[in-house]
Amino acid sequence: MDIKIENILALLPSSEEDRAFTPSNTDIYIKGRDIAAIGDAPEGFTPAKIIDGHGKLLIPGLINCHTHSYMAFMRNVADDLSFDEWLFGRISKIEDNMTDEDAYWGAMLAIAEMIKSGTTCFNDMQMNIFMTTKAVKESGMRAVISRGLVGSGDDEAGLNRLEQAYRERDAFKDCDRLSFFLGPHAPYTCDEAYLKKIAAEAKREHMGIHMHLSESRNEIENCRNTYGCSPIELARRTGLFDSHFIAAHCVQIDEDDMDILKKYNVNVVTNPASNMKLGNGFAPVPEMMKKGINVCLGTDGAASNNSLNMIHEMSLAALIHKGTHLSPLSVSAEDTLKMATINGAKALMLDDITGSIEVGKRADLAILDLKQPSMQPVNNPVAALSYSANGSEVDTVIINGEPVMEGRKLLTIDEDLIYSENEKIRRRICQ
Amino acid sequence: MDIKIENILALLPSSEEDRAFTPSNTDIYIKGRDIAAIGDAPEGFTPAKIIDGHGKLLIPGLINCHTHSYMAFMRNVADDLSFDEWLFGRISKIEDNMTDEDAYWGAMLAIAEMIKSGTTCFNDMQMNIFMTTKAVKESGMRAVISRGLVGSGDDEAGLNRLEQAYRERDAFKDCDRLSFFLGPHAPYTCDEAYLKKIAAEAKREHMGIHMHLSESRNEIENCRNTYGCSPIELARRTGLFDSHFIAAHCVQIDEDDMDILKKYNVNVVTNPASNMKLGNGFAPVPEMMKKGINVCLGTDGAASNNSLNMIHEMSLAALIHKGTHLSPLSVSAEDTLKMATINGAKALMLDDITGSIEVGKRADLAILDLKQPSMQPVNNPVAALSYSANGSEVDTVIINGEPVMEGRKLLTIDEDLIYSENEKIRRRICQ
Repeated sequence: MDIKIENILALLPSSEEDRAFTPSNTDIYIKGRDIAAIGDAPEGFTPAKIIDGHGKLLIPGLINCHTHSYMAFMRNVADDLSFDEWLFGRISKIEDNMTDEDAYWGAMLAIAEMIKSGTTCFNDMQMNIFMTTKAVKESGMRAVISRGLVGSGDDEAGLNRLEQAYRERDAFKDCDRLSFFLGPHAPYTCDEAYLKKIAAEAKREHMGIHMHLSESRNEIENCRNTYGCSPIELARRTGLFDSHFIAAHCVQIDEDDMDILKKYNVNVVTNPASNMKLGNGFAPVPEMMKKGINVCLGTDGAASNNSLNMIHEMSLAALIHKGTHLSPLSVSAEDTLKMATINGAKALMLDDITGSIEVGKRADLAILDLKQPSMQPVNNPVAALSYSANGSEVDTVIINGEPVMEGRKLLTIDEDLIYSENEKIRRRICQ
Repeated sequence: MDIKIENILALLPSSEEDRAFTPSNTDIYIKGRDIAAIGDAPEGFTPAKIIDGHGKLLIPGLINCHTHSYMAFMRNVADDLSFDEWLFGRISKIEDNMTDEDAYWGAMLAIAEMIKSGTTCFNDMQMNIFMTTKAVKESGMRAVISRGLVGSGDDEAGLNRLEQAYRERDAFKDCDRLSFFLGPHAPYTCDEAYLKKIAAEAKREHMGIHMHLSESRNEIENCRNTYGCSPIELARRTGLFDSHFIAAHCVQIDEDDMDILKKYNVNVVTNPASNMKLGNGFAPVPEMMKKGINVCLGTDGAASNNSLNMIHEMSLAALIHKGTHLSPLSVSAEDTLKMATINGAKALMLDDITGSIEVGKRADLAILDLKQPSMQPVNNPVAALSYSANGSEVDTVIINGEPVMEGRKLLTIDEDLIYSENEKIRRRICQ
């Protein structure tokens, strides 16, 4: 659809070296799926739709770089518990009873929540192929999908999961909003031989890799006991870092780990809410940024957050490191907005098509209504996103040139239906 | 107005020892300003208004125990700066140019934001008498007001400020939603003689005291250099703790300080966002709770937060201590809801009239709409408040028995007017 967004305050990429964003009052022209022009109309442009941007803020759609969308129906089932009680006492038991259809409805609920808080792209690790992908295709979302790979050596189950990953990738070749990474789950669920196998496959298939790494102190200790090295070094020596790599968490890492991450251009997703909630601590984000590591932002799944709201996650990322470093100069509002947009796009190999408001990129955009007490007066819209917004200001969302929400009404998702389906799942397996 | 709220999921006080809240499906009857009955209708009750509670959650109105409401127009004027640059380079300069009327419009904006995120009572320290009070009176809010007291010895300015505090208190005797504390600003803005004077005045006038204490490492160091003791010990030895006392911050405190706080029944307000944002760190909340100190929750002013959203503050309080203590068992969702409700009421000497949903207390209530993707499915409403909600779920707010918001529309405040007035202030003194 050809759309003109007129007279809007837009966070455009900055041309100044010390700034990432320049707030500018401008007009945006969308032609098909792309941003066709900013400022002056392209020749012969006739919009099918005009959006009045007065009193509104246009931002690049947010990119949630690590989640498990199917888990949305598990939000608030298991809180304030030890990690073992959380995982083995509650979550694993629910997952044992979960069907493919449950995973689909969970993913739809997650996507509804993400769109309503300004997210236009997410990086998902899932277990039920054809379910999150189906939800993404139907909802108009953009996503990178990894089938979670768990296995050891050449066992059949591990190879089957790899085969599933390829099958799903091949089945959705026609959807330009979907791409696929390989998803070795973690150093404690894949052995070294299986990781080497995945490393070789990723290279052959030219696929990126998405993996949990260095999340908890337990994981580090077990990895050192089993392999004599950190999870980061294990990933390096198995060849996983020879492909494009996005590492979720990286909370419990040291200087040597960070040097490896930098050397291999590993992209790191920090998940502040989840890392705190499970008692894993604070990732050394300022230190990674100083080293020049590409840090992006994610919510993790709803079972350990328990929201998928990237604006909330931005506020956490902008605040907690000031607390741990006793410095208000630690991670800035601008840093967090970069993490949630262009850094995420780079980590997902999508920075040629999304992550910023630029001509030629896909129109992946969120429009926030600034007429809220919490957003007034507008002294600094970048700071307002991290420190004042809560996500509910998002009024309109466009993905791949198509409006998926207007006036907070979802256009591609039946909200009442996903609530009732998720309520059925809750009653069946979450009580 | 007599109101029936029917068929609602309400967070009632629990009768079980190990729980603070029991979610119950029930009906609530409001007669005049009070909760008249829960469950069965009082005899002869004829509601003037019936609120349908289906799909909604009723919570006690939240209590913001430390803020400076007039600062709302300063949100996002000064972020990611050192404390000195923030205060002396930006905030103080703006305050120098601020008029009484500016303070009024700032307070109105703050109150609008607080009501829209479920807050029904706040504890304010201000500088322009008759302004926040006027805003509270007009808006239907409940508040405890302290005129910030700054001075030394018997200097006239300090005594004038005390006189202002009394004048304001006496002028608003007729408003049952307003009460008054004395507000010595901080150990670095009041000398020992002035603090002793205030301690004596508070005793004589039977007034509570609201003061900033032990916020930054700098403050501790300066206090030790000047007085040879911590700010907590200084407050004790000047007699301030002999009156009912609410201490904001208490970030940089040690075991001895905590023992004093406990011994004198001092109420502590933790302000997680502000403490992180200004680089002051994390208050030892789990340690204070373990000692049995009454810990409540506040946002601080919008210049150092930059929001006044208690739901956001609850999420921070529930998450950050799990991070610092590497334990998911640190501060629970239930703990944070207590901090934001009944603990706050105790700290403000208002627990006989507010802070919980109980017959005979004033109807200070917030109703949340659970039909939001982030709140579905409803596995645990208490956990959902800290971990999933963002404040925008608040649909209806009742204070002192009077609806002040319905369907997210403010009934006592002209939103457009406060936006335009605060925008004028921004242009005049914030650029």
